Amino acid sequence: MKYNIITISREYGSGGNAIGKMLAEKLNIPIYNSEIIDKVAEESGFAKDYVKEKGEFTSGGHLSALFKSNYYYRSSNEDIIWAIQTKIIKELAEKGPCIIVGRCADYIFEDRDDVLSVFITADMEARIERIVNIYGKEEPPEKIIKDRDKHRASYYQYYTDMKWGESKNYDISLSSSALGFEKCADILYQICTEE
Amino acid sequence: MKYNIITISREYGSGGNAIGKMLAEKLNIPIYNSEIIDKVAEESGFAKDYVKEKGEFTSGGHLSALFKSNYYYRSSNEDIIWAIQTKIIKELAEKGPCIIVGRCADYIFEDRDDVLSVFITADMEARIERIVNIYGKEEPPEKIIKDRDKHRASYYQYYTDMKWGESKNYDISLSSSALGFEKCADILYQICTEE
Repeated sequence: MKYNIITISREYGSGGNAIGKMLAEKLNIPIYNSEIIDKVAEESGFAKDYVKEKGEFTSGGHLSALFKSNYYYRSSNEDIIWAIQTKIIKELAEKGPCIIVGRCADYIFEDRDDVLSVFITADMEARIERIVNIYGKEEPPEKIIKDRDKHRASYYQYYTDMKWGESKNYDISLSSSALGFEKCADILYQICTEE
Repeated sequence: MKYNIITISREYGSGGNAIGKMLAEKLNIPIYNSEIIDKVAEESGFAKDYVKEKGEFTSGGHLSALFKSNYYYRSSNEDIIWAIQTKIIKELAEKGPCIIVGRCADYIFEDRDDVLSVFITADMEARIERIVNIYGKEEPPEKIIKDRDKHRASYYQYYTDMKWGESKNYDISLSSSALGFEKCADILYQICTEE
């Protein structure tokens, strides 16, 4: 395979994880998402839900940045989780070809040329339908989506200094609502397998 | 074919037009880029170079917006060119399946579901190499690229109220430097022709 690592960033409710799973099955390689949370929780001692929240969403970044800039330097919990998470993602990637969902993996491996970085988007209508069907959320779904995206974008920008969701930061961006999940997985499979 | 119109937006020097030409050849359909300029020049009476400049790049948008908001309303030349250009793009699309490069065509046809909207990006190194090879520009090429992108982005945002180059605004975004021109054209061809 041309790529040893496929990173998938995704808007909340776009089906990026589901497309990743389809691709993992086609390529017969592992996909890491919740496994990363488990390992970070184990190694850091933080609760899984806390790691899940802080390992992709941050609002405390600015405060942490303030601390970093003066002699009262002290790592925030987010920074500790970021460091452990990055280490674990690199260790997982050393095991062999794999797909990594979220967590700025595209940035972590940006210097490697055997990495395909993918972004999955979808229109708001499709995302609302998806999260209501899967999670049956009670809050207005559009509010949840916007809130999650905002925090993912903020997290990404804080740790990578790049803009989340900008085409230029990825090798390929696909709209799952325009193209369909199957088609997205097919396109990625072809890119990965063709010479 | 599933799509009657393929719109290609592109960063300056990314090869979006070249990829469009490859795709047009594969699909045996016309591609419109400089033809739009010719027609707008003919219809508006403005010189071709002026139309080329004002039909994708604008810096006077904010002033024009000010005029729009009060009773001193008067169309700027950019607005006149925008109106004529939009009409001509719609007329060209009525002739049959085609590819349209730039000029916010994705926005012009956003309500149609037979349109595939594409964005082509590339890393700075590849873009510099390309514009130096093709145009042999004397100015520092990175400055030209950043300037062109900035004006395209400003033009796009002014007329569409969306952000140029954001993955969410396109069905598919491809990096021509990561994937190669041929591969980009192949992926688009497959999306257009497969059921």
